[in-house]
Amino acid sequence: METLQRTRVMSGTRPTGRLHVGHLVGALGQWVELQSTSEVFFEIADIHAFTTGFEDPQHIRDSREELVLDWLAAGVDPLQATLFLQSGVPEISELHTLLSMIVPLSWLQRVPTFKDQIEALGADISTYGFLGYPLLQLCDIAVFRASKVPVGKDQLSHLELGREVVRRFNHLYGPTLVEPDAILSEFPAVPGTDGRKMSKSYHNTIDLADDEETTRKKIRSAVTDPKKVRRNDPGEPEICPVFALHHLCNDARVPWIRDHCRTGELGCVDCKTELAETMNAWLRPVRERRASFDRATIDRIITDGTDRARIIAADTVRDVKRAMKLL
Amino acid sequence: METLQRTRVMSGTRPTGRLHVGHLVGALGQWVELQSTSEVFFEIADIHAFTTGFEDPQHIRDSREELVLDWLAAGVDPLQATLFLQSGVPEISELHTLLSMIVPLSWLQRVPTFKDQIEALGADISTYGFLGYPLLQLCDIAVFRASKVPVGKDQLSHLELGREVVRRFNHLYGPTLVEPDAILSEFPAVPGTDGRKMSKSYHNTIDLADDEETTRKKIRSAVTDPKKVRRNDPGEPEICPVFALHHLCNDARVPWIRDHCRTGELGCVDCKTELAETMNAWLRPVRERRASFDRATIDRIITDGTDRARIIAADTVRDVKRAMKLL
Repeated sequence: METLQRTRVMSGTRPTGRLHVGHLVGALGQWVELQSTSEVFFEIADIHAFTTGFEDPQHIRDSREELVLDWLAAGVDPLQATLFLQSGVPEISELHTLLSMIVPLSWLQRVPTFKDQIEALGADISTYGFLGYPLLQLCDIAVFRASKVPVGKDQLSHLELGREVVRRFNHLYGPTLVEPDAILSEFPAVPGTDGRKMSKSYHNTIDLADDEETTRKKIRSAVTDPKKVRRNDPGEPEICPVFALHHLCNDARVPWIRDHCRTGELGCVDCKTELAETMNAWLRPVRERRASFDRATIDRIITDGTDRARIIAADTVRDVKRAMKLL
Repeated sequence: METLQRTRVMSGTRPTGRLHVGHLVGALGQWVELQSTSEVFFEIADIHAFTTGFEDPQHIRDSREELVLDWLAAGVDPLQATLFLQSGVPEISELHTLLSMIVPLSWLQRVPTFKDQIEALGADISTYGFLGYPLLQLCDIAVFRASKVPVGKDQLSHLELGREVVRRFNHLYGPTLVEPDAILSEFPAVPGTDGRKMSKSYHNTIDLADDEETTRKKIRSAVTDPKKVRRNDPGEPEICPVFALHHLCNDARVPWIRDHCRTGELGCVDCKTELAETMNAWLRPVRERRASFDRATIDRIITDGTDRARIIAADTVRDVKRAMKLL
């Protein structure tokens, strides 16, 4: 009997805090689609989290289960997907050390995110591990011989470096590793409550784990068109994050809201109340799913997935070491 | 009953070629002394060998057993010492990836050997792993919680960096790792057959694995005082490597040789013949020991030592991960 080999896809998230509706309509939505067509591996990238968070390991530790809860809430299915802990697969770290021997320093130094992040976050972040971030990412992928990786445009340079490392390895030691291709994904930008891109670092998110009252409060204090001061002032919906958020959960009502904001007939308070209610209704099944998992179940999902991941990872590292004549 | 805890000592060698008499009177002599007073771990540093030799893994592979044979020939006792393969203890690589997250890039960039070697060997050597060399060395040591490390003056900066990494780890995550102290060892310089320091890279060595005829040939073609052209010319023994080598294996005759070289009564051919015979006699027990081990025994010594090493290494990495709240 022939076996139909499904495409192997790898992705992951650093456990550094809770996921928000931007993730839900972005990467998480894509993950849920991918899991039914591909063999997917989703990584809790806890070692990666140390690149920016090494001074607060407790936060990384606490974020681990929260992250998996957010995944499950979004519809990630542990029966279809392998959810695993990066630090629980030591083969990834081993591969990282082995491959470090063939990666020219200049390849890592020229990755645009390296200099950008140092400029953005200061020299404190400039550790040896931070310089090696894209290499460790490649190891996450290569250890499963994943052929497809969903990436945003900003991470494309990391994947390109990873592909170069694979080519170099295969050239030096014989064909062993799989060169991963990007699934280039650009999701519609979701604005946060302050109008900037929704992002944990801006404190402008609506989180999957928020309760309904918190969601209401966040939306009540959201920024709107600053020129619409009083109820009957005409508004400009195109620059209003509240209007943009209606698209996520209240699409049918968008034309009516646009028109009545422009004429001034719809006030911001009413508009926000409607958003809060539809947002909460939209998130209700997600949040109910989130609440349905107990701690023991989460632990078991992580343990089972990590065990499964290790079997494949060990197989790859064995081949890598054989190719390097270390066995 | 109280147990007397012996000092734990760690050292290692990269499998990049055969050992020579310079090693025998240097590091290897010290190892043999240390094994009877301390708990010693001697590493076949095969991953480290990739920093300079990644293009020729077969050479590293072939050098592995030769290296252990040289150790055993010199008197290293596998019943007293743990001889292990670096790549066979993946916990070292895992620790390397974990610690990479807390090591500032600048610490590695300022290690003098980093810039020196790039100047000496060219930019090709400048890989990510090469930059991390001193960190991987620290992992070799720290994974066994060794408190003493024999080092030459040129490696002191590596150990100092390693101590800094340990202090930083213990400061960030609580006391976990042992700060290793140097056993600073300066051995008498042994000249090679061309008068420069005996070193594999100069092709001027007398190897433990050489047979007696090869030893004779190498000594016959050795450089002597260039002003002593004919037999009866007076020589200057202090600048002659052949004279210096007599000290290793023919010490009692050194005064006589010095005097008769100076007067011109001793010719270089006779002097070399005497050196070759005493050198071979001195090395005979070493070479006989070398020949007494078969391949299967060597394999078993490495396997047993690596198994023993892994037990201790796994224990340390477990503590490290617990301190980093990864478990």
